[in-house]
Amino acid sequence: MTAAPGTHAESSGDLMSDATLLRSMVQVEAAWLDALVRAELAPGLHHDDLVGHLLGLLDDEAGAVLLEAPDNRPVEGLLTLLRSRTDADTAAWLHQGLAQQDVLDTALVLAVKDVLHHVVEQVKAQITALTALAERHAVTPMAAGSAETPTPTTFGAVAVVWLDSIIDAADLVVDARSLLPGQLGGSSGTLASLTEIARLRGEADPLSAAADVVTDVAERLGLRERRAWHTARGSFTRTADALLACTDAWGRLAGDVAALADPAVREVEPAEPRLPALIRQTAEAAPPLGATLHLASAGAAWAGSPGSLGAEWRAMRELARDAAAAATWTTELLDGLGADEARMLAGLQASASAVLEERSALAALVGADAEDDSEPEPYLGIAEDMVVEALERAETFMEENA
Amino acid sequence: MTAAPGTHAESSGDLMSDATLLRSMVQVEAAWLDALVRAELAPGLHHDDLVGHLLGLLDDEAGAVLLEAPDNRPVEGLLTLLRSRTDADTAAWLHQGLAQQDVLDTALVLAVKDVLHHVVEQVKAQITALTALAERHAVTPMAAGSAETPTPTTFGAVAVVWLDSIIDAADLVVDARSLLPGQLGGSSGTLASLTEIARLRGEADPLSAAADVVTDVAERLGLRERRAWHTARGSFTRTADALLACTDAWGRLAGDVAALADPAVREVEPAEPRLPALIRQTAEAAPPLGATLHLASAGAAWAGSPGSLGAEWRAMRELARDAAAAATWTTELLDGLGADEARMLAGLQASASAVLEERSALAALVGADAEDDSEPEPYLGIAEDMVVEALERAETFMEENA
Amino acid sequence: MTAAPGTHAESSGDLMSDATLLRSMVQVEAAWLDALVRAELAPGLHHDDLVGHLLGLLDDEAGAVLLEAPDNRPVEGLLTLLRSRTDADTAAWLHQGLAQQDVLDTALVLAVKDVLHHVVEQVKAQITALTALAERHAVTPMAAGSAETPTPTTFGAVAVVWLDSIIDAADLVVDARSLLPGQLGGSSGTLASLTEIARLRGEADPLSAAADVVTDVAERLGLRERRAWHTARGSFTRTADALLACTDAWGRLAGDVAALADPAVREVEPAEPRLPALIRQTAEAAPPLGATLHLASAGAAWAGSPGSLGAEWRAMRELARDAAAAATWTTELLDGLGADEARMLAGLQASASAVLEERSALAALVGADAEDDSEPEPYLGIAEDMVVEALERAETFMEENA
Amino acid sequence: MTAAPGTHAESSGDLMSDATLLRSMVQVEAAWLDALVRAELAPGLHHDDLVGHLLGLLDDEAGAVLLEAPDNRPVEGLLTLLRSRTDADTAAWLHQGLAQQDVLDTALVLAVKDVLHHVVEQVKAQITALTALAERHAVTPMAAGSAETPTPTTFGAVAVVWLDSIIDAADLVVDARSLLPGQLGGSSGTLASLTEIARLRGEADPLSAAADVVTDVAERLGLRERRAWHTARGSFTRTADALLACTDAWGRLAGDVAALADPAVREVEPAEPRLPALIRQTAEAAPPLGATLHLASAGAAWAGSPGSLGAEWRAMRELARDAAAAATWTTELLDGLGADEARMLAGLQASASAVLEERSALAALVGADAEDDSEPEPYLGIAEDMVVEALERAETFMEENA
Repeated sequence: MTAAPGTHAESSGDLMSDATLLRSMVQVEAAWLDALVRAELAPGLHHDDLVGHLLGLLDDEAGAVLLEAPDNRPVEGLLTLLRSRTDADTAAWLHQGLAQQDVLDTALVLAVKDVLHHVVEQVKAQITALTALAERHAVTPMAAGSAETPTPTTFGAVAVVWLDSIIDAADLVVDARSLLPGQLGGSSGTLASLTEIARLRGEADPLSAAADVVTDVAERLGLRERRAWHTARGSFTRTADALLACTDAWGRLAGDVAALADPAVREVEPAEPRLPALIRQTAEAAPPLGATLHLASAGAAWAGSPGSLGAEWRAMRELARDAAAAATWTTELLDGLGADEARMLAGLQASASAVLEERSALAALVGADAEDDSEPEPYLGIAEDMVVEALERAETFMEENA
Repeated sequence: MTAAPGTHAESSGDLMSDATLLRSMVQVEAAWLDALVRAELAPGLHHDDLVGHLLGLLDDEAGAVLLEAPDNRPVEGLLTLLRSRTDADTAAWLHQGLAQQDVLDTALVLAVKDVLHHVVEQVKAQITALTALAERHAVTPMAAGSAETPTPTTFGAVAVVWLDSIIDAADLVVDARSLLPGQLGGSSGTLASLTEIARLRGEADPLSAAADVVTDVAERLGLRERRAWHTARGSFTRTADALLACTDAWGRLAGDVAALADPAVREVEPAEPRLPALIRQTAEAAPPLGATLHLASAGAAWAGSPGSLGAEWRAMRELARDAAAAATWTTELLDGLGADEARMLAGLQASASAVLEERSALAALVGADAEDDSEPEPYLGIAEDMVVEALERAETFMEENA
Repeated sequence: MTAAPGTHAESSGDLMSDATLLRSMVQVEAAWLDALVRAELAPGLHHDDLVGHLLGLLDDEAGAVLLEAPDNRPVEGLLTLLRSRTDADTAAWLHQGLAQQDVLDTALVLAVKDVLHHVVEQVKAQITALTALAERHAVTPMAAGSAETPTPTTFGAVAVVWLDSIIDAADLVVDARSLLPGQLGGSSGTLASLTEIARLRGEADPLSAAADVVTDVAERLGLRERRAWHTARGSFTRTADALLACTDAWGRLAGDVAALADPAVREVEPAEPRLPALIRQTAEAAPPLGATLHLASAGAAWAGSPGSLGAEWRAMRELARDAAAAATWTTELLDGLGADEARMLAGLQASASAVLEERSALAALVGADAEDDSEPEPYLGIAEDMVVEALERAETFMEENA
Repeated sequence: MTAAPGTHAESSGDLMSDATLLRSMVQVEAAWLDALVRAELAPGLHHDDLVGHLLGLLDDEAGAVLLEAPDNRPVEGLLTLLRSRTDADTAAWLHQGLAQQDVLDTALVLAVKDVLHHVVEQVKAQITALTALAERHAVTPMAAGSAETPTPTTFGAVAVVWLDSIIDAADLVVDARSLLPGQLGGSSGTLASLTEIARLRGEADPLSAAADVVTDVAERLGLRERRAWHTARGSFTRTADALLACTDAWGRLAGDVAALADPAVREVEPAEPRLPALIRQTAEAAPPLGATLHLASAGAAWAGSPGSLGAEWRAMRELARDAAAAATWTTELLDGLGADEARMLAGLQASASAVLEERSALAALVGADAEDDSEPEPYLGIAEDMVVEALERAETFMEENA
């Protein structure tokens, strides 16, 4: 069997895996319980490293079962499993004040965040590759592909349109990543149980005590603090749309590469010919997943089955996993992309007459001397300036996301 | 026939209409030609007000035909119509240096921008209505709807979750609006024809002269300047996704209102009972349109039929028109929304036993005195603080978008 | 302005138009009222030709307004208009026993049925064109396009795969057409009002009298009789899926033609180069419309706003209109499609070595004499038989749908 | 952890599982090789039961890896695995004359066919449950849910609308199942390699010999014989659309049940309250998967990466798995569904005045005596006849699919 093209299996195989999602759930439970103890709302427990202790209880194989049944509520099963393997105090205080939806949402957010990180890292590698291509071919003339009457451009100008689309998309990913919130509000999102615990513990200001716990947990998980979004799913759709912007940009690039690499054209040559089709399949499967997430968001009230893995969870998971794979493939495609300058020039020359006609029409319009038409300059307008401008933007992105 | 609910027909009937789109196309042609004249690349023409002159040539009824046929390239027809009704010089210089795709894209952007403006204005009215609701009902207890075991919340807390979702979406709209670019690059996006004109006119630096024309046109049209995005459709998908975030938020709100207004529940009463269903229909039809735009973006290279109105144009137009209508309906729904505090309280009391049980379990956990359970405080956690926090955010949005 | 390619505007411009839909609504009202009179449930009215009379009252321009507002219930407006323009008896008995949803659904069904008829007629023309292509090129060798290592096929075999897909889709259209039902049940679908009228009129068996009216109306409209499907929208999704099967088949064909017509390949030549892109755009925009219809069907209960034009109506209308246009375009594409046998042969020869290698490996496997490999037969398997078989199937379809 | 509602895990857990799909691939390879031996095109091999032998080589755990990597071509890996574990002759003749796409497509078809069988069995159980409900409640009056002014119907009439939708959908499933074809054509779909083998073996009529092998294999796998559909994916979209018709019907039923089971309504009571939400989530996630399959079908030419698991494979697999689960859930929902006749009557009485008004308007129209209005008959039209008619149809379906 031919090996998978590239390093995806090694570098990103765990992104959004069952094991990753289960670990994320345990991390949420552990961070919450730890904060309760630190705030002295729960009693001191017998574990120096509560996160480590709880993660240690997780038996991946048994655990994975929790995520499989389509009607499952994995948090119920996870709590049963953890409680049966720890001491009575930890078992009793585990999950107090949290809702199951809190755990599912926050765990998914944690796992998605890893994907966004992976995507940004891949984009940086893509920018490096595209920058090199654009610099090398800033004045390499070729025919612009999609027009009916092909007009001249440069391969550098083509490359920086790819580059610009990718940076546009990556900007959305960076923004979405910084806004990913923890879901930490209890069953109505009001922290009522936690506040009650604080009151029962004799806290002078139970509301502040409860709010402080949330702040502490969000900080430790590296997530934005945000009140109650059980029914406000905009964080997920925003993230999904950012990933779609990426798969769009990669899919379009892959489509261009496929067209330019066609046996009859061969102006570029990908090192691994299967990559464009793989990337485009992902780009085609992704938009319906985005639609599912928007529909879930618009219908959050009526379709909700609290604490269960619904259409939203699955669509988000698939979209993120696919986008992570497409990110890696696009990097590989760009790293190994060769350009054939001679064939590009030949392709352009086939359309030379249309250009000459246009130049001569313009000369007639302006009333200029028709002999000008025979001048040798290529008819490339600001193509080179476009490259320069785009490379500056790429540099800025690299600095801001170093 | 019953009148349409509200003011949509009057206030937003022209948004994305045939007439609006045709006028936008003429505005693009006029702004471009005007800039050529001002830059002395085209000769002085015989019109003080070129925009007014060209718009005056447009015969809306005849013109509308241009947009109808599904296989149409309306720019061709529009140019024929305009040229046949103006003087020879204007006819000759009209559209020089532009591509048909430039005109279509920029005109669509202009029309979409009006929709985004309308949406933001409606959101401001919605914020005003929701702020009033949330203030009035900050401590009005009710049962939280979607949980299996309903727990208490307040109607103010429910209202600010709606509010937060709407502001999240509106933030995306405001961002998308500020980024909407003009498409002004000629057929390869390199300004080759315009540069050639500048060279033939004897400009010392034809590249700068050409670039200056673009800057001038973008400024007059109120659009961001951006190079060549014929095949990079991220501006459209970003705008579409922002509108989807709005229809999601409105759809969810409408779903909640429908559930709370159900004859068997009647905790709220909409002034116009048809509005929730209308808003939800829009929210359900919108995500597939977004998917179409992403697919068009991902496949920009292969599916493009330069200069024609394709799937992208139609999906964008429908999505924008629908979102504009849903914006108005949501404002109307919120303006006329009554709340029945007594029924809310009654609804909550039906689930009182579950709350008492939870409180008594927490007391046992903490080891506190069970008599505490009988205390009269409502079990509302930080609900009131959530309202306060959200109202501050709303105020900030209103100030920033005054 | 270049004329639209082909005859679509003339031959199919009225399919699903506003005027067509309004006329269909009037036809439903007229057929119903006529049946009431014939059954002597309504009094004799003063019109020999009730359908003609009511259609004559319709003022298309004023009428079209009824379909425009996105929140409209056009039946209300239509009834007001008709009642104000006819005599008192007709006005009083118009629409008695019908629900608004009955009129909308049945009118849409009538309009859709015309589209299905148009599609089948176009398919028959496509079959004629493809049959001719397949016969002419049954043994014209060429390289099979999509494989990584191209293997030989014939252009006839390629054409009959297109043909088979189109006939498969057309079979679904023919089935869906025969199943399109009238919606004629009154507000609960139980014919309660009509039964009451029959009872008040002194009918011995009011239930039978009411049922007979429905049978009569369905027959006159040429529709299947089916009880109450206000909330059972399978007839629409089935029809939509049949149209999607068509746009899929046409889109795939157009994609193949575009690839084979690429300037670098030129094995086929379409008479009108814009057609493949137009057809593919339709094929790409159609599946999300199908998804909208399925979502509307699955949510028929909750999203319904009785009597209004919702997401379902619009999606159905667009899908049908698009499919009608794509049908015509595909016929035009096939009618004008030229094949270049020499270039096909040259394309195949480029992959000859792969075939030779495979043949020699098979000889080794079987233990046969390697010299066999040099035999001149083309390596085409049952390609010719595939053509023969498909042409028989095409003939059957043509006979059954003559 | 609460057990999953019902028997899904036991009865349908293997449908579309990794193990099932791998076994299906091996079955295809084995049936093919067996047919080669029987036709004496391959030499006699040392296995009485070739299918059993090859299935025995499959190590599920190792094998499952083949399906996981998103860029995988599992047939390559499977062949390597099988060849390394069998004798030289079997290894050499395995897969001769087949294409990888043949194996993938036919294996998917086999696995999908099991799902269709499961769906039909579940539908039969649903028909039994709905028939009982409809008979028991044929004259149980209730308010029709979706109208603005509720009019009377019976619970039996509501149940038979559900029933009709389900039978409509099941008819499509039965048709799709009978049409599922094997994909057995070799790399160009022309059986070229197999024909070459037959020629090398000295067969007098190599074309017939090759065609006979295909007939034999299709028969043994229980699949329809159909030529070459590598690029004609209508069998998949037809199957998917049939499954969507099912999830639509179940989703609509679940929505009605949820509305009628609402705490404020309680006219019906599901035994397991989570089922409606689970079913509706499936119904909401399914249509975008259908759109993906149609897009894959329309773009079969360009997006294909022969022999790999693309967007189509995954969408088909998910849709089938989800539909299988929703089938089981709907059966469970109907088996345990209770109806509260008293509350139904009470709900109807709330709208009695509207009915009285309508009856009195009809009496005035007809000129009948208003006292009639006070007559006690319920205003139910042909509701009971609708039940009778639907039950007959249900009986026919049961007989035809016994």
